[in-house]
Amino acid sequence: MGATIKDIAERLGVSVSTVSKGLNGGRDISEQLRQSILETAVEMGYENRRARKLDHRTVAIFVENMDYQTPGDFGYDIVLGFRQAAFSASWDVDLVPVSPAFQEENRYDTLMMEKSCKGGYFVGFSLEDPWMKELQTTTIPTALLDNRVDNPNVSYVGTDTEASIDSAISYLISLGHEKIAFLDGSTGSMISDDRMAAYLISLRKHHLPIEPNMAIYSYFTADAAHYHVPGLLELGATAILCGNDLIAQGVIDSCRAQGMRVPEDVSVIGFDDIPLAAELTPPLTTIRQDRSALGKSGFFALYSIMNGTSISKTLLRAELVVRESTATAKPRLVTKRNVDTDCVLCKNPLLYERYA
Amino acid sequence: MGATIKDIAERLGVSVSTVSKGLNGGRDISEQLRQSILETAVEMGYENRRARKLDHRTVAIFVENMDYQTPGDFGYDIVLGFRQAAFSASWDVDLVPVSPAFQEENRYDTLMMEKSCKGGYFVGFSLEDPWMKELQTTTIPTALLDNRVDNPNVSYVGTDTEASIDSAISYLISLGHEKIAFLDGSTGSMISDDRMAAYLISLRKHHLPIEPNMAIYSYFTADAAHYHVPGLLELGATAILCGNDLIAQGVIDSCRAQGMRVPEDVSVIGFDDIPLAAELTPPLTTIRQDRSALGKSGFFALYSIMNGTSISKTLLRAELVVRESTATAKPRLVTKRNVDTDCVLCKNPLLYERYA
Repeated sequence: MGATIKDIAERLGVSVSTVSKGLNGGRDISEQLRQSILETAVEMGYENRRARKLDHRTVAIFVENMDYQTPGDFGYDIVLGFRQAAFSASWDVDLVPVSPAFQEENRYDTLMMEKSCKGGYFVGFSLEDPWMKELQTTTIPTALLDNRVDNPNVSYVGTDTEASIDSAISYLISLGHEKIAFLDGSTGSMISDDRMAAYLISLRKHHLPIEPNMAIYSYFTADAAHYHVPGLLELGATAILCGNDLIAQGVIDSCRAQGMRVPEDVSVIGFDDIPLAAELTPPLTTIRQDRSALGKSGFFALYSIMNGTSISKTLLRAELVVRESTATAKPRLVTKRNVDTDCVLCKNPLLYERYA
Repeated sequence: MGATIKDIAERLGVSVSTVSKGLNGGRDISEQLRQSILETAVEMGYENRRARKLDHRTVAIFVENMDYQTPGDFGYDIVLGFRQAAFSASWDVDLVPVSPAFQEENRYDTLMMEKSCKGGYFVGFSLEDPWMKELQTTTIPTALLDNRVDNPNVSYVGTDTEASIDSAISYLISLGHEKIAFLDGSTGSMISDDRMAAYLISLRKHHLPIEPNMAIYSYFTADAAHYHVPGLLELGATAILCGNDLIAQGVIDSCRAQGMRVPEDVSVIGFDDIPLAAELTPPLTTIRQDRSALGKSGFFALYSIMNGTSISKTLLRAELVVRESTATAKPRLVTKRNVDTDCVLCKNPLLYERYA
């Protein structure tokens, strides 16, 4: 931390006066260079002392349940993107890691007032967190990653799940797959429910039948796969779409344990594109969440609310990154008839009502 | 057009030097005052000569099928909001009214290059417009009001229809209504389909039955109501939600022609909150689209794409404005049994698959 203008100039190979112009809104450099100076400054920990002095232009980012300190951590690029967008608009950022206990001890509105913070971005929270209740009535401009609260001062930021899952399914169909299973994360998480709904909507759209026991909730861990993969293979699945990359890692291991090759016998697709994804054997085809963009959009959403525009939702595009875990479908004999007893739709009345 | 700094100072009751600071990014005025100076400057037609000179910081807003020149016109506040957001970020705006013929004669990408425009916001376009096809492959950052195109350079801006229709239905339910009809605009418009889907989802959520012939596509005109209102009343509807304010105006007239009082016998809710809505007898309860925010968000979406963040969708909150066309439900005898032949769901296979 604590880079100087000279450090930034050296990293970018430009003069100190160019960096200074970029940081201070000088006019005779290109917009692109200015952007790159600002982003590098934030990345290197340059502190914009001016912003904090002025009229308390400070926003906070609250992080829970998520590593963020080291490049590669899921939260790292989110926090960096948020800082970069704030810095470009001459706002300063307070980074505040929080626990449920911290939330019990501090009211959100009071804390923000004490800190003279004008807005907050919540990252990694679950609906059970103590502050979630406060968000229903808060008057502080707030953005929330991957969770929804019905309050005009609170804005939802997330990924366009429906479009991204559909791009993965469309790709599998183009490879000849028709038996596409979905192994999702935990039931009751908003993210899992959105991904499950998106899977069901996409199958409908492509006129593929929704098969009971091919759409499964499990847990967001690699272990979860071992309980479910043998059943999916018996049912004839030629492709398994996963609720995140860890589940996909487990699925690849389980397939191998069952004597199946990935991608020759079974195609596997993950979700997120964590750094591990490219390191797996085979490297994982996955839906990439743009975490830097999720960070920047958090700031834009806050900025809009602070300026009187209540954005309900900002949804970002996720890109399908095709690596080596997917290939042309190789149909397999169904060794077990599907039965209706354990169907995910039967267990989730809301999904059942909407999609069955 | 052509206001001076002095005109702006007089309108706001501040000094010329304060306005000058606001316009030129001076630091010792509050963020709120700065915002209000910038917005007033745009509203009064002050021209920011500096922006255009610099590095071609120009974006375009293309308007079709929509009046926008006079305060009160549907497009007026959209264009103004777009200009205000652009101006605040030191961007200049080209306003370009377009017709289908104009689109046939000019390729979009070429036109933007000729104008040195860095991004375009499309307002009032339909999916049949000639430029829509170009948008599927354009590399120009583009935002699109109320229409979706699957291209990472094209961003959707619109209202959160599901949340806003649900707030209207929740309000009617709190007044005791259970037979809530929906008289929508034309079939095949993305907006109509979204509003119809939101109506069906909301009824499901509140465990109200979806009744055939209570969910009707018509046209976005007042006349459309006369064909449908008698049937809805015979079926026992105590409330009629409408696809826009013009339809609602027709519904109020039709109810009266049938000897029914609004709101004593039938509650009516519109959509949009055009200036006419408050002038009707009775003044119309309606879902207000924040048109200024739709304009500003168009610029923010463009700005994000220009800076490398591909926002798929920006959805704004719409507010339910309660006036005098809604009241406690007064149940009525059903004089005609509902039959299944003319059901909207049967006519729209996509909706049928998803919601029936």
